[in-house]
Amino acid sequence: MSKRLAAVALGALAMAVSAPVMASDNPAEDIIKARQASYRVMAWNFGRIKANLEGEYNAKQVEAAANAIAAIAGSGMGALYAPGTETGSGYYPTSVKPEMFTDKEGAAKVAIAFGKASAALASAATGGDQAAVKTAFGDVGSACKACHDQFRQKRD
Amino acid sequence: MSKRLAAVALGALAMAVSAPVMASDNPAEDIIKARQASYRVMAWNFGRIKANLEGEYNAKQVEAAANAIAAIAGSGMGALYAPGTETGSGYYPTSVKPEMFTDKEGAAKVAIAFGKASAALASAATGGDQAAVKTAFGDVGSACKACHDQFRQKRD
Repeated sequence: MSKRLAAVALGALAMAVSAPVMASDNPAEDIIKARQASYRVMAWNFGRIKANLEGEYNAKQVEAAANAIAAIAGSGMGALYAPGTETGSGYYPTSVKPEMFTDKEGAAKVAIAFGKASAALASAATGGDQAAVKTAFGDVGSACKACHDQFRQKRD
Repeated sequence: MSKRLAAVALGALAMAVSAPVMASDNPAEDIIKARQASYRVMAWNFGRIKANLEGEYNAKQVEAAANAIAAIAGSGMGALYAPGTETGSGYYPTSVKPEMFTDKEGAAKVAIAFGKASAALASAATGGDQAAVKTAFGDVGSACKACHDQFRQKRD
């Protein structure tokens, strides 16, 4: 993530006085909240796809959920790791490891893998082939886990 | 939102033991968190577009942010208003008014308007015409406000 992008993102929150969610006077906290919220929304939609794969399959619902995951994954999430957000709290203390900010090559690798897997899931979901969705869903889960194993602190 | 969809969504969280975010033992809280997170992520991306319109315009960033908003808006947000989530807390107490659950026609109207405005913004952002993006951005803001005025409790 570029410093410019981080500055834009910080500025966006600082200036967004008329935005639907008011910026607090703590831009780092706002960014960590947006970061935690982004993963929460992706997890929610991931869970919906899982429920469809394990129960009655609603292709429209799976497509919509997969599109949400892919769009968030492709939204420029690097801005959510702006300098100053290595530690601290959003809704709760961040679980990110410091290595996410220092190992730029490793971070880019997991981010690109996640982006590709998410895009493939959205593509499979649009195609409507449930077996292809199941495979792509597993690949997204693996991409999540790869990043968690490397860059997320273990929770109690 | 159908009861079936709500059941699927609740089930998704209850079953998603291997999902990236573990479900708690309080499905209603999980849904309210997903609801609050969804609006947070949209607001974050809305703020990024605002910063681009007021500063240096990065068409790719605006497109990515607009796509995230449109995909979340189109992801079947009705499931985030499942029965049992009229009151209670997610990350914080919900600000939703009871009317959102009882005035189904009114709720559908603001939801459809928001979905259309978000899709139009994403379309304008893909086109790359900054003036068109600015207009569409204003329309999304108006759609946000219309729902807030009608269905969101005033905050202190």
